[in-house]
Amino acid sequence: MTPRKLILDVDTGTDDAVAIMLAALHPDLDLLGCTTVNGNIEVEYCTNNTLRVLDYIGHPEIPVYEGAKEAIVRKDLPIPRKDRMSEADSHGLELPIPQPTSVKQSAHAVEYLIETYRSATEPITLVPVGPLTNIALAIKLDPGFVDRVPELVIMGGGHEISNTTAAAEFNIWVDPEAADVVFQAGFAKITLVPLEATHQALVSLDHAAQLRALGSPAGEASARFIERRIDAYDMGQPMEIPQSAPVHDALCVAYLLDPSVIELRDYHVAIETQGRHTLGRTVIDTHFRGKQAPNARVAVGSDPEKFVRILLDAFAPEH
Amino acid sequence: MTPRKLILDVDTGTDDAVAIMLAALHPDLDLLGCTTVNGNIEVEYCTNNTLRVLDYIGHPEIPVYEGAKEAIVRKDLPIPRKDRMSEADSHGLELPIPQPTSVKQSAHAVEYLIETYRSATEPITLVPVGPLTNIALAIKLDPGFVDRVPELVIMGGGHEISNTTAAAEFNIWVDPEAADVVFQAGFAKITLVPLEATHQALVSLDHAAQLRALGSPAGEASARFIERRIDAYDMGQPMEIPQSAPVHDALCVAYLLDPSVIELRDYHVAIETQGRHTLGRTVIDTHFRGKQAPNARVAVGSDPEKFVRILLDAFAPEH
Amino acid sequence: MTPRKLILDVDTGTDDAVAIMLAALHPDLDLLGCTTVNGNIEVEYCTNNTLRVLDYIGHPEIPVYEGAKEAIVRKDLPIPRKDRMSEADSHGLELPIPQPTSVKQSAHAVEYLIETYRSATEPITLVPVGPLTNIALAIKLDPGFVDRVPELVIMGGGHEISNTTAAAEFNIWVDPEAADVVFQAGFAKITLVPLEATHQALVSLDHAAQLRALGSPAGEASARFIERRIDAYDMGQPMEIPQSAPVHDALCVAYLLDPSVIELRDYHVAIETQGRHTLGRTVIDTHFRGKQAPNARVAVGSDPEKFVRILLDAFAPEH
Amino acid sequence: MTPRKLILDVDTGTDDAVAIMLAALHPDLDLLGCTTVNGNIEVEYCTNNTLRVLDYIGHPEIPVYEGAKEAIVRKDLPIPRKDRMSEADSHGLELPIPQPTSVKQSAHAVEYLIETYRSATEPITLVPVGPLTNIALAIKLDPGFVDRVPELVIMGGGHEISNTTAAAEFNIWVDPEAADVVFQAGFAKITLVPLEATHQALVSLDHAAQLRALGSPAGEASARFIERRIDAYDMGQPMEIPQSAPVHDALCVAYLLDPSVIELRDYHVAIETQGRHTLGRTVIDTHFRGKQAPNARVAVGSDPEKFVRILLDAFAPEH
Repeated sequence: MTPRKLILDVDTGTDDAVAIMLAALHPDLDLLGCTTVNGNIEVEYCTNNTLRVLDYIGHPEIPVYEGAKEAIVRKDLPIPRKDRMSEADSHGLELPIPQPTSVKQSAHAVEYLIETYRSATEPITLVPVGPLTNIALAIKLDPGFVDRVPELVIMGGGHEISNTTAAAEFNIWVDPEAADVVFQAGFAKITLVPLEATHQALVSLDHAAQLRALGSPAGEASARFIERRIDAYDMGQPMEIPQSAPVHDALCVAYLLDPSVIELRDYHVAIETQGRHTLGRTVIDTHFRGKQAPNARVAVGSDPEKFVRILLDAFAPEH
Repeated sequence: MTPRKLILDVDTGTDDAVAIMLAALHPDLDLLGCTTVNGNIEVEYCTNNTLRVLDYIGHPEIPVYEGAKEAIVRKDLPIPRKDRMSEADSHGLELPIPQPTSVKQSAHAVEYLIETYRSATEPITLVPVGPLTNIALAIKLDPGFVDRVPELVIMGGGHEISNTTAAAEFNIWVDPEAADVVFQAGFAKITLVPLEATHQALVSLDHAAQLRALGSPAGEASARFIERRIDAYDMGQPMEIPQSAPVHDALCVAYLLDPSVIELRDYHVAIETQGRHTLGRTVIDTHFRGKQAPNARVAVGSDPEKFVRILLDAFAPEH
Repeated sequence: MTPRKLILDVDTGTDDAVAIMLAALHPDLDLLGCTTVNGNIEVEYCTNNTLRVLDYIGHPEIPVYEGAKEAIVRKDLPIPRKDRMSEADSHGLELPIPQPTSVKQSAHAVEYLIETYRSATEPITLVPVGPLTNIALAIKLDPGFVDRVPELVIMGGGHEISNTTAAAEFNIWVDPEAADVVFQAGFAKITLVPLEATHQALVSLDHAAQLRALGSPAGEASARFIERRIDAYDMGQPMEIPQSAPVHDALCVAYLLDPSVIELRDYHVAIETQGRHTLGRTVIDTHFRGKQAPNARVAVGSDPEKFVRILLDAFAPEH
Repeated sequence: MTPRKLILDVDTGTDDAVAIMLAALHPDLDLLGCTTVNGNIEVEYCTNNTLRVLDYIGHPEIPVYEGAKEAIVRKDLPIPRKDRMSEADSHGLELPIPQPTSVKQSAHAVEYLIETYRSATEPITLVPVGPLTNIALAIKLDPGFVDRVPELVIMGGGHEISNTTAAAEFNIWVDPEAADVVFQAGFAKITLVPLEATHQALVSLDHAAQLRALGSPAGEASARFIERRIDAYDMGQPMEIPQSAPVHDALCVAYLLDPSVIELRDYHVAIETQGRHTLGRTVIDTHFRGKQAPNARVAVGSDPEKFVRILLDAFAPEH
């Protein structure tokens, strides 16, 4: 089987890091490049973290393109910025692996996306797991872009669950207008992986230990990242299973390897860009009250055992 | 035990009708009066339906006060109006029981609410099961009103489930500004019964037959109302259990009789009044992402067996 | 000629005070009562100031009804409140005339408005010169109210000029939803007197001296009020003519005496209730770009000499 | 004197056409290129019209780059589109001069803007006279872009006057989010030429005759364009002087030649992106009610005689 080609759009982050390793290492996937975007932290730090990960696992040849430094319209959202943080907090935003030796590409992420899809001869899945700014900019700059992307697998949103405001998930909340552009653009296939799915695919300290025991760089790194995640979740937003955490972005990559790791339903998804209390909400019409045809396949659940098995397989030394 | 005093604010409707009968007939409750409000249909028809129900079950002495004819601010929502309906549809809005002989009171519902609470010597629970226009107007006209209402039991809203748009439940969507006023007013105790609870307390054709078999007017009337509801739900928004329907408003009254019929959790509830896709959404902060203290107890589930048992007990002939 | 009957809805304030005196003293007007509303300051202080004025000019028989304590929906606007002010600032909110001996009526302003119009046998002009909360509540509580008011003369709004934000005038900004209700209600005749008109009818220190020289209580009081206004405007928002100030509300009453004191044009007026930068703006369609028929007559200019002449005539001792 | 370098961003359009001719022909200006944007009509037609103009006046060497096909976020505005028009109306959107023989460049307008400013060794004034989509996209793709543009001269907006809704001018209304991005971006110098200025610089049929009498291609073309404009304005939005019309975009170029053709004041300008009645309004804080420092110089008036004189001089045959 030819490996499935993909591009990851990331705001790296510990869960992006696991997603990158999974995409870079699994033999069934061909990670063409990573694009970075303002999100969990300023884009320069996302780029640096992305380079660290690829270096650490021995894949410095996978190119990294830096993208949008701010949301497509908004200036007024209180997004994390290194210069507003305490030393301790900001330290936590650097991944606990060495500084990279490789460097980012000179082209802008959006330019890379447009050019890569223009010249593509095979399908390339696009997997944005941060705010959707780069994708929206590509749509606006190249009206043919939408038709060239066979599938978009997005980590973002939530229906019952939110993690930033009472109504919104972080990735969408950071750039609601970009998300609005993406969901209205007319892509052939959008697969949305929201918090309902990622909060079911919890990973535990025990899993981290199993990953470390693999003895591979990816096993060690993912163990560190997951342990850090569990610490943070236990403090800030404890999961139903204590001492466990979601690894959101990696679930999107796992889905490319085994679609049955999530359960999908067809729904219409709209993005709220004007609400006083609902800014950035993914309005998923689960009860078909609107009059609009589905524009996305939404993950409503996931299989945590399959997910962890995929990670353990992928990060085993033989890969 | 002294029966618990209450006032029902209704936009009658088949489920309001069951709620009225339960409140009027149960010996543990003392229904002081009904106030009506624009909602399911124009307020004149709500008033007429309310009078029909009270006459039919032999309680014409319970006074009915007509309230708001339109939302507190909005003119632009496509609310059902008899003159916009087909003959057949509009027929369906009259309850299938005889025209009343009693008449509404001359005072306005809001005047009645304000005066009744001003002169009350015992606690009176206020149970609005339609749009919250009357309640908001009472708050605005009498700044002391909020402190005189010991508990507000509201049917409305939804978190996972919606029934009017992809994000909103009908009662709140019809008058989002009124709901906003109510949830910000500072009531000592708001119990919110949203669709998550009412869609669990489904009533079936078999239950309707049991109610009819009671041989009482309330049994017969509730059977007719529930059968009509099941027809409508099967056509328009089928429930998970086929040939069943929620009887939303009656669940609020059942809760007064047995609090364990619903399961409550403390949450902050805000009302979206400006969203493009989320107008009228009850933003229930189930994951405590906002910084606001809970302002309501929200029903997250219900016990359908207890609910039906309450109806069967209350509508038995001996009452 | 029978004097023209009117009711003034005020948030007294120095300019409201001049309006009250003009309406109470001029033989061609019959001021039936004053209703007060939250606005320049909390409604209790508005009521107190209104009573002071009527006492001071020897008209304690004109009844004063206290109205809305807060806007019809909003809680989040930074409206002046005595408890948020410095001692000096809050002192400035009491009118510089003695405390009243008369007291407010027990009925609520909205109740008074509704009952007065219901029982009226002659036309009564309604002149709201503060936020429109009371008027909106009367509309919502009595659907017949709109048809019983032959003319509404409103001080509020601005097209080119604003005085609270870059887009909004104070009276409308304080309760945009109430204003929205009023302008959509379908009144037979709305005359809107915005800042474009009131900022042309400037009154100077010299005029104040002329008023004082009249030797009447109203002359003395209006001189004091105008001097205080000129001080405040010179400091905060100087007019084109130095040492002068508008006396907004009094211009509405002057118009009842001589319509030619303002120049009117028919326009459609809508109220912005959702803008980020335009909340509370009166959107006056001066270039007929919308498709909506005019719903108001808007004052686009005024005659300052006529205005001052009216004040001097009305406040002369013989009245 | 070295001619002043500029780039025109256009949605050509009869008034854009006059602006292009003025910029291309005047010896004091060096028009480096034109970028086109969706606006008056779909971008393909804007591009075609731009090429027509440059060919007709003998400047086919000035490159034309096609830009954004739709607004940066919105899909829901009823923008003119050829396929929604009658044959007659759509005919009117082609400029009444021959089809071009030259063709557009292959690079995207935004790419051209970014690259040109990156490699510029002399100041280049950027003059966008259509919706601001291209400029906003350049800002988002190249964070250094803002600092490289010494002056932005924008045709758009209005304070007293609007031409699309009761509150908004066309260019801003078509893409309010793009305008919001531009006005918040931090450019060193923004000169805004709104309707208050352009509606003062009216051009008459007599002026058109004078331009035709010049005997040059630009004289003939500008006469045709102006006559068409006057026809359209007389029908749809007659000016105070009958049989005259504004030539909005050309006033921006005239300002580069003689700054005294407009009168400028420093104000803060914000763009309304959420209003129900005010979407796309330029909120110009003319009375300094907000707390924000000026971010633009706004033209509050213009000198029509100077303006026409500039056109007559520039389009005379010797140029």
